[in-house]
Amino acid sequence: MNENLFKYKTTVIRREHFNAAHRLENSAWDGSRNRDVFGKCNNVNYHGHNYELEVMVTGFVDPLTGFVMDAKVLSDLINSEVLDKFDHQNLNVDVEEFQDLNPTAENIAFVIYSILRSKINSNHDLKIRLYETPRNYVEYPA
Amino acid sequence: MNENLFKYKTTVIRREHFNAAHRLENSAWDGSRNRDVFGKCNNVNYHGHNYELEVMVTGFVDPLTGFVMDAKVLSDLINSEVLDKFDHQNLNVDVEEFQDLNPTAENIAFVIYSILRSKINSNHDLKIRLYETPRNYVEYPA
Amino acid sequence: MNENLFKYKTTVIRREHFNAAHRLENSAWDGSRNRDVFGKCNNVNYHGHNYELEVMVTGFVDPLTGFVMDAKVLSDLINSEVLDKFDHQNLNVDVEEFQDLNPTAENIAFVIYSILRSKINSNHDLKIRLYETPRNYVEYPA
Amino acid sequence: MNENLFKYKTTVIRREHFNAAHRLENSAWDGSRNRDVFGKCNNVNYHGHNYELEVMVTGFVDPLTGFVMDAKVLSDLINSEVLDKFDHQNLNVDVEEFQDLNPTAENIAFVIYSILRSKINSNHDLKIRLYETPRNYVEYPA
Amino acid sequence: MNENLFKYKTTVIRREHFNAAHRLENSAWDGSRNRDVFGKCNNVNYHGHNYELEVMVTGFVDPLTGFVMDAKVLSDLINSEVLDKFDHQNLNVDVEEFQDLNPTAENIAFVIYSILRSKINSNHDLKIRLYETPRNYVEYPA
Amino acid sequence: MNENLFKYKTTVIRREHFNAAHRLENSAWDGSRNRDVFGKCNNVNYHGHNYELEVMVTGFVDPLTGFVMDAKVLSDLINSEVLDKFDHQNLNVDVEEFQDLNPTAENIAFVIYSILRSKINSNHDLKIRLYETPRNYVEYPA
Repeated sequence: MNENLFKYKTTVIRREHFNAAHRLENSAWDGSRNRDVFGKCNNVNYHGHNYELEVMVTGFVDPLTGFVMDAKVLSDLINSEVLDKFDHQNLNVDVEEFQDLNPTAENIAFVIYSILRSKINSNHDLKIRLYETPRNYVEYPA
Repeated sequence: MNENLFKYKTTVIRREHFNAAHRLENSAWDGSRNRDVFGKCNNVNYHGHNYELEVMVTGFVDPLTGFVMDAKVLSDLINSEVLDKFDHQNLNVDVEEFQDLNPTAENIAFVIYSILRSKINSNHDLKIRLYETPRNYVEYPA
Repeated sequence: MNENLFKYKTTVIRREHFNAAHRLENSAWDGSRNRDVFGKCNNVNYHGHNYELEVMVTGFVDPLTGFVMDAKVLSDLINSEVLDKFDHQNLNVDVEEFQDLNPTAENIAFVIYSILRSKINSNHDLKIRLYETPRNYVEYPA
Repeated sequence: MNENLFKYKTTVIRREHFNAAHRLENSAWDGSRNRDVFGKCNNVNYHGHNYELEVMVTGFVDPLTGFVMDAKVLSDLINSEVLDKFDHQNLNVDVEEFQDLNPTAENIAFVIYSILRSKINSNHDLKIRLYETPRNYVEYPA
Repeated sequence: MNENLFKYKTTVIRREHFNAAHRLENSAWDGSRNRDVFGKCNNVNYHGHNYELEVMVTGFVDPLTGFVMDAKVLSDLINSEVLDKFDHQNLNVDVEEFQDLNPTAENIAFVIYSILRSKINSNHDLKIRLYETPRNYVEYPA
Repeated sequence: MNENLFKYKTTVIRREHFNAAHRLENSAWDGSRNRDVFGKCNNVNYHGHNYELEVMVTGFVDPLTGFVMDAKVLSDLINSEVLDKFDHQNLNVDVEEFQDLNPTAENIAFVIYSILRSKINSNHDLKIRLYETPRNYVEYPA
């Protein structure tokens, strides 16, 4: 195979799963305003989700392996850096990054991006897609 | 259409969704045994799931409507009797039925069955299928 | 392989897809009662669905082939007997079986069962699962 | 949380469902040419689909809420502006926008985009993904 | 919780995934007859699938745990007894059970049932659902 | 309809399915290095997958048809140019393009792109999304 065959970059995507409890709250607001803005998602005793996480890595294919990045390596990285911290946890209580950050899907995606960005080859682009439910999801960066 | 066309009963299934926090614990056991048995699911600060709920109603088709039971009526019933109590809640803390009952998928399915059984035509059979995650689910009665 | 290895029957399932327009109506009722009972599904100009159809055939595995029934043969049968008549049609107008039968999911499943029953080995059991939407489906026989 | 944490915009996606009847036809062509071009989709009595609609809104996260746009608000907007007009309808007959416009998936996506564009914060980008079947879908703008 | 609350058994289902190569062939037949019966599935160089496996265990809920069987224990069992032998293998060549058995979905399901039956509590019923493709699957016992 | 209504291009996507055997190997490396890099995917007797293929075509909508490209024409093209060559085959052995090219998902996507690029209107953009498993997929061009 000839490296030059590929004119464009390829994206490789690995999907993983974790579940967690959370509640939405702006700690600078009083309870009434929090309930107005966040509704049921502000429930003081938490609710939870099965999050589906897609990590998308974009770069040129390595002609020696035929991989942008080995999906097994990517999966192991997501497991050790993200799932071990988030899975079966209460995001507000148990996860350091959300001590002062409201765990909306947008913010969770941003945190995962920030964790993984330094662990992925800097020549590669990184994007996070996070499903909070099958009908609500976010992508960062857009 | 002639009622006699149908020799057998038909099952009608409505799928609904709710999300909730929970933790697994036998309150008669100490923390060590609970952690041994329930592992990450025993996390004291709760975790959570997007539950997918299928309610299956079996009976003869009414020749006037062509329905065993109107799926819209079934959906409204599930919403008022189950989802309004469970959705965006902490099952252990917020839902009366789990004050003394460990909210495993098996027990949640049993509770939903018990709630709906009295609201469904007694000539109809009822079965609950509950997905805790896309890879773990239960059916009651078997 | 020894035929006696199998103590029990096996079920083989083939999933196919068709889409169609329909409206729900009991022609013996006036418009007002039809609207009361069938709501939006009674819209005089029709609406439609992507139906997902599962045909389930149960019997003993043939030790010569390892098949209960070849899934390719089953797929061809569903295509020629059901999809060629139903796909991209208006069930109320274009399909003979619904000239006097309200095309509810229950009744469509019954009609498909009746069409296929005589085409499938009489030693085999037959069951139809029909999804009208991803959240509404029926099974016949129960 | 510090607003500056986010260097990039985030996309928030809400998925909704409607079903409808339609037929494909260029009213400037005769029946023969319409059948040649549109095949089964030109069936004069209509056929139908379960449409899955994803509305994608891109912008900067509001540091007060952690949202680009509240998914509940987005869902309500899609329901009031799109689903109330399209769900359980015959697109060709019942929906004003398709009186002179062939209801292909491409054109339906364009119409939904046009309806929602003026209702969404003009600082936000908008994109529509519309599934006509699980195997055919479109995105507008590309 | 009172054990007597449950009048019926509950089924617990765990879904796992493996992928494998196979070809369909009756070694007692010549090539011509094998090609006639098995078509493309008889390709001498093999083809392959992502198999989705559901293991269904039915029994009474243990009131101490709220489980019929811990899904984690069931998952570990499927991994050690089935996936470690089947995943990323050529079923015809690498897996002992198919040396003299045609690896149809029916026969694979039977083999998995036979492997797991002796490892599961004998008071529990066991059923295997195996997806060869999203549109072809089998269940054993029926 | 007025062509000028559309300011932007639209993407049309068609999803198809094939299954195949493969193994990953760099023929310039010895067995030990191949096993180190490719792990189970290097199994000498092959394994296999159900590949889900999405072909994405981007262009302006033709105001006469309301199509960017007729999904039926696109489906026929994918079937004749790709599926007839790949489906139920051993990619390493049976498919000419992989005689000297490691059949990773990245390389398969590139090959499919190369096959289809010359068959699609050159004014249209083309993109391939290929699922090797439900949790591993690639896109080319990124």
